[in-house]
Amino acid sequence: MATIQDVAKLAGLSRTTVSRVINQHPYVTEEKKRLVSNAMQELNYVPNSSARRLRRQQTETIAVYVPRITNPFFSHLVEVMEKEAAKKGYQLILCQTRYKKEQERNFLELLKTKQVDGLILTSIENDWSKIEPYLAYGPIVVCNEYSDSAQVPLVFLDQIKGGYIGTKHLIEQGYTKLGYCTGDHKSSRVAHDRRIGFLKALNEAGLQMKDEWYFGGAYSVQDGKRTFEALKKLSDPPQALFTGSDEVAAGIVKAASDAGWKVPEDLAVIGFDNQPLAELMELTTIEQPIETIARQAMELMIESIKSKRTSVRKEVILPLKLIQRCST
Amino acid sequence: MATIQDVAKLAGLSRTTVSRVINQHPYVTEEKKRLVSNAMQELNYVPNSSARRLRRQQTETIAVYVPRITNPFFSHLVEVMEKEAAKKGYQLILCQTRYKKEQERNFLELLKTKQVDGLILTSIENDWSKIEPYLAYGPIVVCNEYSDSAQVPLVFLDQIKGGYIGTKHLIEQGYTKLGYCTGDHKSSRVAHDRRIGFLKALNEAGLQMKDEWYFGGAYSVQDGKRTFEALKKLSDPPQALFTGSDEVAAGIVKAASDAGWKVPEDLAVIGFDNQPLAELMELTTIEQPIETIARQAMELMIESIKSKRTSVRKEVILPLKLIQRCST
Repeated sequence: MATIQDVAKLAGLSRTTVSRVINQHPYVTEEKKRLVSNAMQELNYVPNSSARRLRRQQTETIAVYVPRITNPFFSHLVEVMEKEAAKKGYQLILCQTRYKKEQERNFLELLKTKQVDGLILTSIENDWSKIEPYLAYGPIVVCNEYSDSAQVPLVFLDQIKGGYIGTKHLIEQGYTKLGYCTGDHKSSRVAHDRRIGFLKALNEAGLQMKDEWYFGGAYSVQDGKRTFEALKKLSDPPQALFTGSDEVAAGIVKAASDAGWKVPEDLAVIGFDNQPLAELMELTTIEQPIETIARQAMELMIESIKSKRTSVRKEVILPLKLIQRCST
Repeated sequence: MATIQDVAKLAGLSRTTVSRVINQHPYVTEEKKRLVSNAMQELNYVPNSSARRLRRQQTETIAVYVPRITNPFFSHLVEVMEKEAAKKGYQLILCQTRYKKEQERNFLELLKTKQVDGLILTSIENDWSKIEPYLAYGPIVVCNEYSDSAQVPLVFLDQIKGGYIGTKHLIEQGYTKLGYCTGDHKSSRVAHDRRIGFLKALNEAGLQMKDEWYFGGAYSVQDGKRTFEALKKLSDPPQALFTGSDEVAAGIVKAASDAGWKVPEDLAVIGFDNQPLAELMELTTIEQPIETIARQAMELMIESIKSKRTSVRKEVILPLKLIQRCST
């Protein structure tokens, strides 16, 4: 394979000049640029990106962490981010934390070892105090999730309001026995805030919730089915369920229908996200503006890389919207 | 930030020795390793990965091309690939071609500019003759898609059989007017083979297909809905539709139900993939063994990187299975 020396020889220029052209150094004449470019083409010489990046001290690569890419909320988020990044000349490294603290810590090392220019976290598994030291190595943007102590740009949704408007809608439909179905994601501020919104609406209406109407560990369609099986066994089951996910809601509706229950007469269910699934299954849900979240997070990331400012807190809070269909 | 010189100074060793320890050079005493390691820790020195990679001539990064990550077939494929890659110390760069030739060619440059060690293509947009020259720069594995002329490892499914068993099933249910609904993906061998299987089953049963029973450009739930609107207007519509996707099939079933048609009595529909959606919507479909495809493709990729063999053709053909539900 051709080397930079070969290019210099063919162009009749010094190695230093060739290197300057490749690295877009100023003060190189157009004539020299042309000679180098011709020689590179003739020899099919390709500058090694690792070497180029080493000189520039940039990887032009951004890592995005998601819990799992098969959750349509996260695949949609990543789809838009990748599109935005590609437009601006950046690549996306995909990391799946699978809701595991250790997995997240492994991936944080990408920043420390300078394999990426920055990190976008769409979920947070570890305490922020464990993540913060990594800011010494490059910018982090938090998107979808939320942390009070994070001195970084955060793009998130008003999840208290999300929990509140969904629950208020159920109460307005006349349901008084309301259950709550969620993941067991203790570090998640999203889950925490939604629950606060749920309880707020309950309190305002003077409603009580039984402990047994709380269902945890639900992330997928299968978990939704399992949740219905548990609910079915209760002597006094809830009439309506608030869930944190369209997939979970769809699983509940499917299992309920299979068991001969009518939705919403015997059991009302509200999802979250407004995935294509929600429309197909006629689920009432809360719409999240995924494209806007993804675009804003990527913009803030690239801004942070370019400005080299890593520890500036900035909150972008986006609105949520109730979409009413047939499951409530 | 600390430099390699600082480490050398604190350890009381030469820069060369420190560099040897970092690059796991043989013939370095345990004592020197310990001294360097202690000094690195004390100074919080992190070797630059670009520099390390430059020396090793490896990026430990693999690029995966998908048309779009929001198609659940591809997000599932990528989920498993990322998991397998992470286990073996590789990162995954995600590229979305959005079914565009130019986009694919841009991404091929990642291999040429040595930003990745290898490429996995899950779809092929360009003629293979346009992709082949890039094999000079590193290994390519084709997965899901297929090309006759590609001298690379290929992991794919017997799509002729997929088209055949789906269509045969429809014929066995008593339908004689069969329609076909697909993407307009001219370079796709997958689409081509499925159609051959469809026509083979039709021929064996002595059935004819009207031109107007062919519906193109269908990839998403929305496209499925649009397809039903077109079908509804025909004076002699097909009784059953073979589709290449659960999303499209779900869109057709939803639009048909909304219009008061009974599925499968007024219109039978068969999907493809066996996505969670298919179970929720009670779709008959063809199951693809996604985990096996993804795992095998990643194994072949890492084998190719390690053996530095880039142009060996190897075919891994995996089976497909009919899953019967209520849409037929």
